[in-house]
Amino acid sequence: MAPAWGGIYCHQAAHINDSECGAPEFFSGGAKLMPLQGANGKIAARDLDAALAAVPPGRVHHVKPAAVSITQATEAGTLYTLAEVKAIAEVCRKRGVRLHMDGARFANAVARLNCSPAEATWQAGVEALSFGATKNGALTAEAVVLFADDLARDFAFRRKRSGHLFSKMRLLSAQMAAYVKDDLWLRNGRQANAMAARMAEGLAAIEGVSLTQPVEANILFPRLTPAIIKGLKKDGFGFYERGGQGVVRLVMAYDTRPADVDAFLASARRHAKG
Amino acid sequence: MAPAWGGIYCHQAAHINDSECGAPEFFSGGAKLMPLQGANGKIAARDLDAALAAVPPGRVHHVKPAAVSITQATEAGTLYTLAEVKAIAEVCRKRGVRLHMDGARFANAVARLNCSPAEATWQAGVEALSFGATKNGALTAEAVVLFADDLARDFAFRRKRSGHLFSKMRLLSAQMAAYVKDDLWLRNGRQANAMAARMAEGLAAIEGVSLTQPVEANILFPRLTPAIIKGLKKDGFGFYERGGQGVVRLVMAYDTRPADVDAFLASARRHAKG
Amino acid sequence: MAPAWGGIYCHQAAHINDSECGAPEFFSGGAKLMPLQGANGKIAARDLDAALAAVPPGRVHHVKPAAVSITQATEAGTLYTLAEVKAIAEVCRKRGVRLHMDGARFANAVARLNCSPAEATWQAGVEALSFGATKNGALTAEAVVLFADDLARDFAFRRKRSGHLFSKMRLLSAQMAAYVKDDLWLRNGRQANAMAARMAEGLAAIEGVSLTQPVEANILFPRLTPAIIKGLKKDGFGFYERGGQGVVRLVMAYDTRPADVDAFLASARRHAKG
Amino acid sequence: MAPAWGGIYCHQAAHINDSECGAPEFFSGGAKLMPLQGANGKIAARDLDAALAAVPPGRVHHVKPAAVSITQATEAGTLYTLAEVKAIAEVCRKRGVRLHMDGARFANAVARLNCSPAEATWQAGVEALSFGATKNGALTAEAVVLFADDLARDFAFRRKRSGHLFSKMRLLSAQMAAYVKDDLWLRNGRQANAMAARMAEGLAAIEGVSLTQPVEANILFPRLTPAIIKGLKKDGFGFYERGGQGVVRLVMAYDTRPADVDAFLASARRHAKG
Repeated sequence: MAPAWGGIYCHQAAHINDSECGAPEFFSGGAKLMPLQGANGKIAARDLDAALAAVPPGRVHHVKPAAVSITQATEAGTLYTLAEVKAIAEVCRKRGVRLHMDGARFANAVARLNCSPAEATWQAGVEALSFGATKNGALTAEAVVLFADDLARDFAFRRKRSGHLFSKMRLLSAQMAAYVKDDLWLRNGRQANAMAARMAEGLAAIEGVSLTQPVEANILFPRLTPAIIKGLKKDGFGFYERGGQGVVRLVMAYDTRPADVDAFLASARRHAKG
Repeated sequence: MAPAWGGIYCHQAAHINDSECGAPEFFSGGAKLMPLQGANGKIAARDLDAALAAVPPGRVHHVKPAAVSITQATEAGTLYTLAEVKAIAEVCRKRGVRLHMDGARFANAVARLNCSPAEATWQAGVEALSFGATKNGALTAEAVVLFADDLARDFAFRRKRSGHLFSKMRLLSAQMAAYVKDDLWLRNGRQANAMAARMAEGLAAIEGVSLTQPVEANILFPRLTPAIIKGLKKDGFGFYERGGQGVVRLVMAYDTRPADVDAFLASARRHAKG
Repeated sequence: MAPAWGGIYCHQAAHINDSECGAPEFFSGGAKLMPLQGANGKIAARDLDAALAAVPPGRVHHVKPAAVSITQATEAGTLYTLAEVKAIAEVCRKRGVRLHMDGARFANAVARLNCSPAEATWQAGVEALSFGATKNGALTAEAVVLFADDLARDFAFRRKRSGHLFSKMRLLSAQMAAYVKDDLWLRNGRQANAMAARMAEGLAAIEGVSLTQPVEANILFPRLTPAIIKGLKKDGFGFYERGGQGVVRLVMAYDTRPADVDAFLASARRHAKG
Repeated sequence: MAPAWGGIYCHQAAHINDSECGAPEFFSGGAKLMPLQGANGKIAARDLDAALAAVPPGRVHHVKPAAVSITQATEAGTLYTLAEVKAIAEVCRKRGVRLHMDGARFANAVARLNCSPAEATWQAGVEALSFGATKNGALTAEAVVLFADDLARDFAFRRKRSGHLFSKMRLLSAQMAAYVKDDLWLRNGRQANAMAARMAEGLAAIEGVSLTQPVEANILFPRLTPAIIKGLKKDGFGFYERGGQGVVRLVMAYDTRPADVDAFLASARRHAKG
């Protein structure tokens, strides 16, 4: 979507900026990621417009704005509303850049937005979707869905030459076929979302615990007390501590059960009282 | 193994030159493949030495010779003997280039050479091995084995940034663990080789059929008559026709059974008489 | 200096980050620039150390820290002292990254630091220098000076393949020979610096004018009143307005004469009174 | 003109294939050069068509044919006629690939073809021209002329990011302005061509000397006797020996004078008799 001399705008915390070891730069031949700030892990259309407007057309000293990438659901566990996506798409159209959606947790987003996948993507102006499956039940399968003909044209060559056309590809394709059949992907997404909601409700009721972000998908960032963190670890629970001030990252999976959540909550409650 | 300004020497028919859509150029950042001729799909050490000697050191108008890649077993279904590998490695050492072995069919080669994997690789001077498994029984798993510390140093970064560090990687690793346990990989390779020998013997006995290459692994390139080709297809067999003069490509798999081979031979025999 | 999966640390305002259209990404094959904040256009050794320390060794989700680039004199018209360069070099050594100095205005820096070029570079720990000449009197000539053998080894190949080994290169080399002969480059740098000092002194004496940065080389960023800016333009002077709050960018050249400076000052003074 | 997964077809002896240290691979991000054979340094339209026809559309195992590059005048000192260029352009159109002309010696070609530059390029179907000047009198200046809007669109960004937008670019542009004014470039080209014709005529009359190629521009490849080669060197003449069988490469410059040619011929004649 971006030429090698292009700029790709994304949120500062976007996985493509922070956690891919320069993969976007590699596949584009050296494009530059242009990180933007924004509350709750989201880019605001207004901020994007201002950033793009600040680059004079044809000014070759800067990289040429080429693409925008938004993550749905975001790395912060929040969602772009359809209106927010459309507003960003409108800025992209006006400024002549392409819009990509990183959908590693697309199932969780669609399940919660309660819309069709089409409404969530091309009908809102998204031109390319990374359609994640591995985080939501597949073994190791992901797909790229392209809604613009010109992006699709040479895609098979790009896949081949980067070593992503696998021998026995059918074993991966079969996973995707099962994943989308009978809405399995949405059922998995809903289950994870429901467990996140159950966890959020349970945590909020514990003294000393607060949620640092809206819980809209399957990720939570609660702030726990040192005693709770220590106690949960002693009870065998594992999680990342983010930021060093008691904030931890909890992710509910497609196969997380109510009993799993409840056991975690019981442990947290017990150590909160200690 | 090669910088972006390097030259990678390989056989004209090498898979990396012919069938990867420029993947080596992509991963190296633009290195240039330098194809060499050679009988039976193999590079001769003498020819390699002459090609490398023809490039004056420090002559910047040419790419800098950086690496040599040999395929074991070759695309022609033949094998490099250990002495041949060592002779090529000796040229590489003398000329200051690295030696890579494309081992998509490494199991078939080791099974036939009747040596240890160590003897077939680093003890013969190979510095990096592409260790194939998918063609020999795995679902979709391949490994890279590096015998030189400097090549290994940043390899994990390269894997990540090219999208080859998969989520749930354990599902791929498990395949490799099973593949090498109790010599499963060698048993699979031996089975495919044995079926190729059975097929070669059977075909050689049919009037009008000849073998165009030594059969040393699990691939055959027999020349068949038009009647046999037509008849086999009518009986439901499928294969690539290579070169347009009756030469077809037959590959025996790890799970090919004697009965499979015999059915093919019976069909060929029947149509040879017609 | 950086592999394609490397991170290059530099100041947010560095020319390589802001004004080269992704050239560093291009030449490295996709390395990622990691911008740092810092007062007066300079990176502080302490901040650099903290940034590098925050990347766990071997963590492949991030790019691997590979190089640091400092600009001497900086884009802000300031200088790193030799002690500051040494402190940064010490961090680089400790953290295993290389140190590059962007010396587009190296002559102005050395002239002001009043040291030898060796003291300003390799003796302070710099491993590669972009030695600018075009901004200081040459027609179109720049040089790269490498102080580390391994960086120099394949450099000629890199130059050739990027189209920077020119036919009739001697016409460029002759410029560099004249540039360094009899310290012409330093005399040119001193002249520009002296004019900047004259300009700074003159501006500081005008009511309503302030300097926003220390003037240590040949660039000034004074804040002028709207009336002065308007008047200077009317009198035929041209300059970039940076930041929209009356701050303009003035650069003194190797051939700027005292009379040129005085004419500018006289105009500014006249319009300040109006 | 070619994506990173594209194939660029050119003559085996083309400068871009043989003498640029992988620059085309670098600037394209890893495209693959596909060398073709052909008499007198030229690609035949028929051979090109056959090569392109051999690549099944959409077959991702090969690079995708993307561009053709022809050198005018060729590295062999010969010319494509306008009809030959048109025939190649027709194949390109039919097969959906772009046509580039490497015109390092474009002046010599146009001078000899006795046509307008437009007839030699876009009117014959050429979409991009490397317009050489350095070999024909300029100091160090070359230009790229693009005849297709889509190729031109982002060209300024590509130039900048590869370090070819020079500071003080006007000093290069001034050369090009003078070069094309009053047909200076064509007069220079005609002079060099005339000297090549004079040299060819003189050499052909010497016993034991033969021309190995048609002399159509300003390069000759005569086969000399060992005595003549030895004698010329003794008399102070320098040249490349190509192929080791008495063939040498002689290039006439824009400022070569008849007396220069005659001195060379006299020396050759003298040593031929010895």
